[in-house]
Amino acid sequence: MTLADELRIALDGKWRHVRDDARRTLPDLDLAFDHDLDLEAARQRTFEQLRLLVPTGIPAAGFRTEQGGTGDPGMAVTGIEMLAQFDLSIMVKAGVQWGLFGGAVANLGTERHHALVPRIIGLDLVGCFAMTETGHGSDVQSIETTATYDAETGEFVVCSPTPSARKDYIGNAARHATMAAVFAQLVVGDENHGVHCLLVPIRDEDGNDLPGVTTSDCGHKGGLKGVDNGRLMFDQVRVPRENLLNKYGDVDEAGVYSSPVDNLNRRFFTMLGTLIRGRVSVGGASAAAGEVALSIAGRYALQRRQFAAPDGTEVVLADYRVHQRRLLPLIARAYAYRFAQNQLVARMDRLQRSEDPDPLEQRELEGRAAGLKAVLSWHGSQAIQEARELCGGAGYLIENRISALRGDIDVFTTFEGDNHVLLQLVAKELLTGYAHEVRGLNPVGMVKFVASTVSDTVRERTAASQLIQRLIDARPGGDEHDLLDRGTQLDLFEDRERHVIETAARRLQKASKSDPAQAFAVFNNAQDHVLRCGRTHIDRIVLEAFTAGIARCEDEEAADLLRQVCHLYALSVIEEDLAWFMGHNRLSDHRAKTVTSLVNTQLEVLRPHLLTLIEGFGIPESTLGAQILVDEASGA
Amino acid sequence: MTLADELRIALDGKWRHVRDDARRTLPDLDLAFDHDLDLEAARQRTFEQLRLLVPTGIPAAGFRTEQGGTGDPGMAVTGIEMLAQFDLSIMVKAGVQWGLFGGAVANLGTERHHALVPRIIGLDLVGCFAMTETGHGSDVQSIETTATYDAETGEFVVCSPTPSARKDYIGNAARHATMAAVFAQLVVGDENHGVHCLLVPIRDEDGNDLPGVTTSDCGHKGGLKGVDNGRLMFDQVRVPRENLLNKYGDVDEAGVYSSPVDNLNRRFFTMLGTLIRGRVSVGGASAAAGEVALSIAGRYALQRRQFAAPDGTEVVLADYRVHQRRLLPLIARAYAYRFAQNQLVARMDRLQRSEDPDPLEQRELEGRAAGLKAVLSWHGSQAIQEARELCGGAGYLIENRISALRGDIDVFTTFEGDNHVLLQLVAKELLTGYAHEVRGLNPVGMVKFVASTVSDTVRERTAASQLIQRLIDARPGGDEHDLLDRGTQLDLFEDRERHVIETAARRLQKASKSDPAQAFAVFNNAQDHVLRCGRTHIDRIVLEAFTAGIARCEDEEAADLLRQVCHLYALSVIEEDLAWFMGHNRLSDHRAKTVTSLVNTQLEVLRPHLLTLIEGFGIPESTLGAQILVDEASGA
Repeated sequence: MTLADELRIALDGKWRHVRDDARRTLPDLDLAFDHDLDLEAARQRTFEQLRLLVPTGIPAAGFRTEQGGTGDPGMAVTGIEMLAQFDLSIMVKAGVQWGLFGGAVANLGTERHHALVPRIIGLDLVGCFAMTETGHGSDVQSIETTATYDAETGEFVVCSPTPSARKDYIGNAARHATMAAVFAQLVVGDENHGVHCLLVPIRDEDGNDLPGVTTSDCGHKGGLKGVDNGRLMFDQVRVPRENLLNKYGDVDEAGVYSSPVDNLNRRFFTMLGTLIRGRVSVGGASAAAGEVALSIAGRYALQRRQFAAPDGTEVVLADYRVHQRRLLPLIARAYAYRFAQNQLVARMDRLQRSEDPDPLEQRELEGRAAGLKAVLSWHGSQAIQEARELCGGAGYLIENRISALRGDIDVFTTFEGDNHVLLQLVAKELLTGYAHEVRGLNPVGMVKFVASTVSDTVRERTAASQLIQRLIDARPGGDEHDLLDRGTQLDLFEDRERHVIETAARRLQKASKSDPAQAFAVFNNAQDHVLRCGRTHIDRIVLEAFTAGIARCEDEEAADLLRQVCHLYALSVIEEDLAWFMGHNRLSDHRAKTVTSLVNTQLEVLRPHLLTLIEGFGIPESTLGAQILVDEASGA
Repeated sequence: MTLADELRIALDGKWRHVRDDARRTLPDLDLAFDHDLDLEAARQRTFEQLRLLVPTGIPAAGFRTEQGGTGDPGMAVTGIEMLAQFDLSIMVKAGVQWGLFGGAVANLGTERHHALVPRIIGLDLVGCFAMTETGHGSDVQSIETTATYDAETGEFVVCSPTPSARKDYIGNAARHATMAAVFAQLVVGDENHGVHCLLVPIRDEDGNDLPGVTTSDCGHKGGLKGVDNGRLMFDQVRVPRENLLNKYGDVDEAGVYSSPVDNLNRRFFTMLGTLIRGRVSVGGASAAAGEVALSIAGRYALQRRQFAAPDGTEVVLADYRVHQRRLLPLIARAYAYRFAQNQLVARMDRLQRSEDPDPLEQRELEGRAAGLKAVLSWHGSQAIQEARELCGGAGYLIENRISALRGDIDVFTTFEGDNHVLLQLVAKELLTGYAHEVRGLNPVGMVKFVASTVSDTVRERTAASQLIQRLIDARPGGDEHDLLDRGTQLDLFEDRERHVIETAARRLQKASKSDPAQAFAVFNNAQDHVLRCGRTHIDRIVLEAFTAGIARCEDEEAADLLRQVCHLYALSVIEEDLAWFMGHNRLSDHRAKTVTSLVNTQLEVLRPHLLTLIEGFGIPESTLGAQILVDEASGA
């Protein structure tokens, strides 16, 4: 077993068998994208590739056994993540069909809908997830589509009352979906019971729009050419009452509405909470795509030479300090985020297998999924972008893969929740100590719930494991703490988070007694501060997850190397926010100046292990699909 | 005349008439890209669009009157820049044909070649610029292609001796070029006279490769689908002696080499220096593309509403603090960079019209062109990326333009010189006080020339104008200088630059007496510091250019607004590097903490002027070509 194998095992986490299976079977399925195809042909090819995935068991893993699945949520998201190593169109298309559409039917529906699950798994029923509208994306509670109950006929009448009510950017909607899971305001009589989801057939077998349904096409995008994003308009479309996915809200024949969750906001967020897998998958796939790009750029940096050293030989790119500075901190982050993502998937898996999950744990999970989705998708975009530039002109050729990833990944920071909106959501939860009443409130309403003892709440809710606490307690005291001590690093991360949250809370508390307009202004003025709460929280969680991951690594040599990678991660996060640590007396000017040289030292420590670190990602060179690596190896 | 008009006039600079002409005539030429076309059709369409540009006079402007042009270098680069408002493929294709290929013939050739110029202008002769090779891009002096003189026949024999000698990424080479300006090591007898350029026919009229020439295709790229990038291999291709572009080096019939520039390095850099327009155009076009994206995102931010304020109305995106934080500093930078670019173009125009340009001025110009190309192309990429994310899912649809720009701009940070290599070039010039001997030396050789009095050299060479000096002198003294005082800002920028350069110089001087391997290690360890020299230098130049631009603005209201924009530019640059200003005692902790709130104050000051600022860019809404602006305006 090589050192790289040990790293791979550490990174693979609990669903290593799924990753190993995928590494063995997916390459034979020819999932690479064909850029010569035109838009329609590309969509068709991606659709056909989807069929090849059915026998892998990945689609079935996402559904409970009683619904016809195999009940392995961790496998489902890990499998989807592995697709990102091959192509992001197929990953997104799979996510739309099995994760979003299938997930809505499975999690929002009841027994009467679950008969559809085997057909969804097997692609006999292809659907789309029609939530976002032209007018409302981030603010889903304000969507305009209505589903009005007609007690006379026992049907819902689905309608897009305005142009901005049009369902927009919907994956699978332009071509392949014959049914839509439509989110709409559920109106019974005079009462609006809030957003619910119901199944609406949209196309016949021949692909023609059904009466009252108008589909259209979002056309070309910046990437994801294999995904047919489209639009839906509904003009008095009638569906049977039974098409309401009625787990959290139902209407009986007589038109009486009932729900196990009385509060309208709480009901809405409970429904959304069941759909968490989408965000988990998007974060994981972003990280995976970043690993592909970093693997290509890293391998290229070890082969490509430019400019002669004093001895006349040309220097490999990986030996240039600036090249190391651009590449290695991103690799360190990729390691950090993989550990954090593995932890998230394990928690999600545990909660989703539970018959009676703890509601607070569920909310924490949702918060982490939101925050990690934001941070990982930004990281994926940034890593791919830097990898592109690190490969120069070669990085811009589609044959070298990175540029294709760049176009595909771009929307990952937006879909499944705009990253800024998600970080704000994380921050609100932290600031209000997960108060139930806050969800769905506007900033002004939320301000009232900002906990006065926010730091205790946060500290309690995010209590570090005993291991981590030991590390923190063991740090050298006084001003001269060692920045290469994990306890010190964790302390700095946690202290920053607590301070940022406490000061944000104080700013907002001032607004709680103001009039609404004033309160909104206070909140808005503090918005960048609020978002920083979310970001610093996630940074701390990631460092903890990395630390815990190292503790679990059984190979001492691999653990040693991981410790060095973790140092680089921690130091580069500190360096990025150095002005804060200095301005808040967490680091003296003298101490702060050592950060940059410590980062550089870590680059020197890790440089000899660059290939090992890349191999640790566990992506075979053939899967990378970069012509340049083949050419350079052959001396072309 | 509206305030926006006054801003536009200030930004348009000296070639306002060219911009106005372009705004009037280019929209009729249908230059927008058609994303439904396949690769070959897209290339063909872009090629046909090129023909439409001939009558505009832009191509002819780049050539001297005696060569058949109209001798207006400023118009030539401004015209190319304006194309970027419409489509970057057409901009690049124009740049390749008239700027690079035409420029090589005009500037490296002599009278016997200038007869080609009218054919180049009129597209009767389509060429490519074959410099970069698979093995060498940044290090052009090490290219492997050879042109060996055969005195027997009076011909040069052009050869690609290895696979890595293949010309690569060459625009126009895959389809349209029939001739290449080939850079090759000029070998006469046993002597290599270094890199020279010669004209090599590569295709016949029917597009077939000529004997000995093998062209191939780089295929799909991350963008610029209309540009046919290709590859060239030469197997003993013979061209007449007269095909050597012989202004800086010639071989007579007998095989005797002669050159007006004895030193091989100096000769090489003199040749490259004549080709400066490419970098100037790429920087300008990057900034222009960024303006398009910011105009779309800015207009959208003023129309799009999401989440309800306390009064129940939904808030326009432009009113959210974080949205302002993402958008407005980029707009401020766009203003700053346009002033800097205008200054650069004016200097370039003056020097290129001069019969006997000052060599030191020429080198300074080359340094600025390199540095601004790097900074403006990064800015363009960043602005477009942020604009994409600011428009959410809509930003990802090609019909809204930004995503297309994103793919196209991506390579601007790489071509015409990798940005990191360019910043290092700028830094080397600053560190060695423009010592002639340094050019072409490796880091170890260069270290010997690091000026011991580097700060004086820098200060002298970059002496601020009287106006700026007055501002600096007029700053309030003591610790409590006002960060909203331009003199203070300029002082901070200049002081930072000087300190960064001085300390880099001291680090490198230590190496000057070491053995070569050690000296290389010292240089390499300091590489990130060296690059910072270039970056801080450009930041200062930009702030000076902005200040000078405001001084030239005759409308007082517009000048007032520009002053506020300039504050935001300066403050956001300081904020980005706050740890440095704190750690080097340029800003007390207390003072430093005000920077972020001052930035936020500038956001509030500028928010009411958002539309005016966008209109100041002078891009008609129809040219923006974003469907979303049409839809939002119509309430869809």
